[in-house]
Amino acid sequence: MPVVYPRVARRMADIAPFHVMELLARAQQLAATGRSIIHMEVGEPDFSTAAPIVAAGRQALAEGRTGYTSACGLPALREAIAANYARRHGVDVDPGCIVVTPGASGALLLAAGVLMNPGERCLLADPTYPCNRHFLRFCEGEAVGIPVGADTAFQLTPELVDQHWDAQTRAVMLASPANPTGTLVPPAVMQGIREIVRAHGGALIVDEIYHGLVYDEPAVTALAGGDDVFVVNSFSKYYGMTGWRLGWLVAPPPCVRDVEKLMQNLLIAAPTPAQYAALAAFTPEAEAIFEERRLAFRQRRDFLVPALRAIGFEVPVMPQGAFYVYADASRFTDDSYSFCFRVLEETGVAITPGIDFGEYQAGRYVRFAYTTSLEALQDGVDRLQRFLH
Amino acid sequence: MPVVYPRVARRMADIAPFHVMELLARAQQLAATGRSIIHMEVGEPDFSTAAPIVAAGRQALAEGRTGYTSACGLPALREAIAANYARRHGVDVDPGCIVVTPGASGALLLAAGVLMNPGERCLLADPTYPCNRHFLRFCEGEAVGIPVGADTAFQLTPELVDQHWDAQTRAVMLASPANPTGTLVPPAVMQGIREIVRAHGGALIVDEIYHGLVYDEPAVTALAGGDDVFVVNSFSKYYGMTGWRLGWLVAPPPCVRDVEKLMQNLLIAAPTPAQYAALAAFTPEAEAIFEERRLAFRQRRDFLVPALRAIGFEVPVMPQGAFYVYADASRFTDDSYSFCFRVLEETGVAITPGIDFGEYQAGRYVRFAYTTSLEALQDGVDRLQRFLH
Repeated sequence: MPVVYPRVARRMADIAPFHVMELLARAQQLAATGRSIIHMEVGEPDFSTAAPIVAAGRQALAEGRTGYTSACGLPALREAIAANYARRHGVDVDPGCIVVTPGASGALLLAAGVLMNPGERCLLADPTYPCNRHFLRFCEGEAVGIPVGADTAFQLTPELVDQHWDAQTRAVMLASPANPTGTLVPPAVMQGIREIVRAHGGALIVDEIYHGLVYDEPAVTALAGGDDVFVVNSFSKYYGMTGWRLGWLVAPPPCVRDVEKLMQNLLIAAPTPAQYAALAAFTPEAEAIFEERRLAFRQRRDFLVPALRAIGFEVPVMPQGAFYVYADASRFTDDSYSFCFRVLEETGVAITPGIDFGEYQAGRYVRFAYTTSLEALQDGVDRLQRFLH
Repeated sequence: MPVVYPRVARRMADIAPFHVMELLARAQQLAATGRSIIHMEVGEPDFSTAAPIVAAGRQALAEGRTGYTSACGLPALREAIAANYARRHGVDVDPGCIVVTPGASGALLLAAGVLMNPGERCLLADPTYPCNRHFLRFCEGEAVGIPVGADTAFQLTPELVDQHWDAQTRAVMLASPANPTGTLVPPAVMQGIREIVRAHGGALIVDEIYHGLVYDEPAVTALAGGDDVFVVNSFSKYYGMTGWRLGWLVAPPPCVRDVEKLMQNLLIAAPTPAQYAALAAFTPEAEAIFEERRLAFRQRRDFLVPALRAIGFEVPVMPQGAFYVYADASRFTDDSYSFCFRVLEETGVAITPGIDFGEYQAGRYVRFAYTTSLEALQDGVDRLQRFLH
């Protein structure tokens, strides 16, 4: 009997690959021919994991900590995360509401799965982190991207949420600091949106994956406004643990049992060595390293934003967090995908096209990540200057 | 404004927690009061990870291997897995079709997500690994449990698949060796089912999570019959890496790109330290350890099955793999859930009730895991003997 390969589900037509991956593949080809490539496309800090965390991970392995933890994570880690909310943000979080996940990805999967019925809608900003749409689509929910621009710092507002809420709307997802724009949701806006969501009996999901990586004001968490919110966080960015795959979800108390059920069934538990390693993230030694790195990111931002503006990119809102600049390249192109490839071929500078983040004005925008050294950023800007002028 | 907590999605009513967790909680209470507990409920080998793997993990951390890998995993690991299929099973597998995942859980999530449209059905044996139903339900597919008993070694047959296939049926899921029964799908049965699935244009998913843990005959993989099958495997059981969260999915060639898209979006990548550590799983040193452990499991099985039969449990089919005995306790109870609690309270022996694995005759069956020492198994059987007689 001839082999018949299975067809795939309809959702796969709506789940896009990261376009930047094609560009990255081309960058690797160019690098293989000896070309010098400057990576300003990567959403991963260039620092490797801080030494105290690595040491704790190695120690845990030496002690044979290789079995499963309980589904919600090591009690000591859940308590350490809660203690950190209290100590650094003055917010009281029940450790019992913290579920440790394989990366923030795991947390986003759980939040979408616990909340979304098929056909129900979740409002989110366009542009946004591309996977957000796909977690929703995966469980047959619908992501409704609301076009946002510089006038609202690329964030939703209470007015926008109210205006777009309909009978099918179930949830709102915010990100602060946001990828790709690096902007924050001001506390008053957060509170306004929270009240609208409450009035509609909906759910609020706040992506705080870049929490702590802010440069102009203290980091605020949505948990400060109450426990009726799903907060997604990560050890990847501020804590520099990308490859370990560790994050967490703070769930509203009545939803914790359901989140735990999903965690047990879909993921079993987060990686054990990573959980033991992360216990060292809350030590003064580790925190000093994070602070030093935060200042380095700030210095890069403070160089990059004016430098990009000087060569003709418009950066309408100063990014206040994460490590991204979302730059309007409309002086050079209205097809930023082709533009990114041209820039790569001609200059060796790799940047991410706007279409990876949504549809609204995506052809005008590109994202620069300052996840490389100040020297490399300077070199990249010089190359762009020569190419564009 | 008063706080209104969000309600959860309908799927949560269909996704069950592991019932054994309640029992485990009670076992921990008893242990805290000083009671001696014998754990025969845990699906995790009692051996910690083999020293060569731990050493490789520690080495990777020392070398700063803490960043993301590409979505499908380290090329060297995908090649090592493919080489292992060739060397140990004589089967040619394209490394490009192997996607490294966070545990077999990640692989099951990807397979379900890539294949199932809402309302479509996947046939699987009842009893089965409980999460299988929930991965399907999560993406709005429907798990159809087909009652199977000792006459088919608790496995589906070509006849059963053909008989239950209807217009909504999209896939069949098999497990070999199976949890909770430890039985295998004989190659001829596998081939028969594969041909029926091909004839219907459906998809075949084979759970080989316990692959290699077989005691009476060589391990066979469904990949030997062709590449039109999704095969799920794990570093957790045979390779003893539970807490590291590492597994893999072998996908049919035309589906790989879609699996990769889902992996990128839902999970980013499997844990990096675990991937480097797993490279050491294919060395002669590590393989000698796995073989020694396999023989220890066989010795335990060879003790436990006759011992359980001698005290009145019926074990209608000799389990040939994994580390489970699915035992008929109908001489003692028709409510195995209460029975497990009574056994725990009276004897301190923890076992898993049948309802964790399905509905068919679930009240009659209990699962014993031989993931504890021969001495503990002997002690457990003695305690049961005194309690039951």
